[in-house]
Amino acid sequence: MTSNYCTVCKKRESFFYRKYSGQKLCRKCFSESIETKVRTTITKHHMLKFDDKLAVAVSGGKDSLSLLHILAKLQKHRPQTTLTAITIDEGIKGYRDEALDIAEKNCKTLKIPLYITSFKELFGLTLDELIIKIQAQGQTELTPCAYCGVLRRQAINVAARKIGATKIATAHTLDDETQTALMNILRGDTTRLSKEKPITNQAHPMFVRKIKPFCEIPENESALYTYIKKIPFQDTPCPYASDALRNDIRTMLNYIEEKHVGTKFAISRTMQRLRPTIEQITTKEDFKTCKKCGEPTSQKLCKTCEMLQKIQQPP
Amino acid sequence: MTSNYCTVCKKRESFFYRKYSGQKLCRKCFSESIETKVRTTITKHHMLKFDDKLAVAVSGGKDSLSLLHILAKLQKHRPQTTLTAITIDEGIKGYRDEALDIAEKNCKTLKIPLYITSFKELFGLTLDELIIKIQAQGQTELTPCAYCGVLRRQAINVAARKIGATKIATAHTLDDETQTALMNILRGDTTRLSKEKPITNQAHPMFVRKIKPFCEIPENESALYTYIKKIPFQDTPCPYASDALRNDIRTMLNYIEEKHVGTKFAISRTMQRLRPTIEQITTKEDFKTCKKCGEPTSQKLCKTCEMLQKIQQPP
Repeated sequence: MTSNYCTVCKKRESFFYRKYSGQKLCRKCFSESIETKVRTTITKHHMLKFDDKLAVAVSGGKDSLSLLHILAKLQKHRPQTTLTAITIDEGIKGYRDEALDIAEKNCKTLKIPLYITSFKELFGLTLDELIIKIQAQGQTELTPCAYCGVLRRQAINVAARKIGATKIATAHTLDDETQTALMNILRGDTTRLSKEKPITNQAHPMFVRKIKPFCEIPENESALYTYIKKIPFQDTPCPYASDALRNDIRTMLNYIEEKHVGTKFAISRTMQRLRPTIEQITTKEDFKTCKKCGEPTSQKLCKTCEMLQKIQQPP
Repeated sequence: MTSNYCTVCKKRESFFYRKYSGQKLCRKCFSESIETKVRTTITKHHMLKFDDKLAVAVSGGKDSLSLLHILAKLQKHRPQTTLTAITIDEGIKGYRDEALDIAEKNCKTLKIPLYITSFKELFGLTLDELIIKIQAQGQTELTPCAYCGVLRRQAINVAARKIGATKIATAHTLDDETQTALMNILRGDTTRLSKEKPITNQAHPMFVRKIKPFCEIPENESALYTYIKKIPFQDTPCPYASDALRNDIRTMLNYIEEKHVGTKFAISRTMQRLRPTIEQITTKEDFKTCKKCGEPTSQKLCKTCEMLQKIQQPP
């Protein structure tokens, strides 16, 4: 006879079966297990100093909001760590506005300051305007995601520096991390393979170091956490979302995980074991500052300025 | 207007479009490109010394037979290299007999000696008998492929030593190698990840070194070669074939290759670049000899003897 009680507390009814651990969990024990996992991930990878000023990159989606809620909870035991949410308004009409409202609402509940900055403010044009330009030029080489990714990374770093943050937390999950690792292997990109880690190196003084406290949390469990905690989040997908290779890899990884439970964790462990040695063989990038905007780059122009310059060219 | 002529000779009609290189090839230029690729792979990885006595592992399938034909061709320019085919009769009724006939027929045409040995002779029982035993014991932990793989590897090594071979050539293709690499990453097995390379290390004097001259040939091109050269081969699949994870990975890799051409080569290059550093972090296995059969092993009993002992236990 199989009991329907939570494997951990043995009192409350279970509502979630965690296939990779064999546990049946009640809502309370499930949420606590996620919070504990985030805390141990932070400790294990030495992600935070006691007095870090942490900027949390909040998109308004489920992952970044459950991360924000968990970090707010953990902060109670770390009174000298300060939290600020950062939201980048890329300028996507009918999509980003909703996300901004949701980010504001959550920050208000959690009493966390929210810093908003936009592509328009930083780079002079919204993502909508940028995409119209590249479409007019007939550019098909890069997807909207490729442009947005480069600009958003720079925007988050600039914003974090502006508010005096010492670290940036992003909500990349176990799924994001394993997908990225496989993408880099499939592309033969060993440099990125070594860079994508739970806590980034300080490659240049103007880069704020990034941490990924969710790197061992499966995406579906991050979603479940927002659901249990009734955290409001945006669940409409971005209208420009188009990363074909990532989508294929996501589908295949979910399929393999379903049949061979624990695969995502195994990939994550393999990467953790390999990363230090991969770092040895990748040539260290020599960072200087971009001659146009002054941001750190290994080239003459930073990726952002290079892209913006290309866009400004007449079609 | 697109021409239908071969991109290489520009004379003959093309019959195959090689997506990853953009070439359209005629039968002759295609076959020559495969032979050249095998020759450069052998040179690049220093696979052969001028006076090697090479044992070619021939299963009777398309890959091993096209390898045998190409090696026989290359041997004409290497008169001091000798070739012997090795076929292992696992003892699979209604399947292996056909493969043995085909191996014999090919060796006769190529005037290459064929050495046949069997599981029955070496281990005292056929694969059919072994599987009846494990089914009677109700063992489900390992698949028939897992047993067969361990026993066949040992059999090939023993056979190669018996005929005085200095190297063993196996027909693992680009597809096999990239599937194996991903499987090892998905399983978190860094030791195997470092061991699976184009030419194995001499880990123990009783191990004959293995080379994989087809490691950069896609499986479909190896198949096409047998077709063009009218090489007779067995194309009925093994009745026990059951490697679920490999099948899933094969399907997904073929799907991704179809959409993102060159992915398999990219994985192969990534692995080649990473392997030396992965080797640094994997603990060297300390080989001694099996106390039962005397074959090299890192444990007290070799994997073969361990498996055979388990099988002999009463159900």
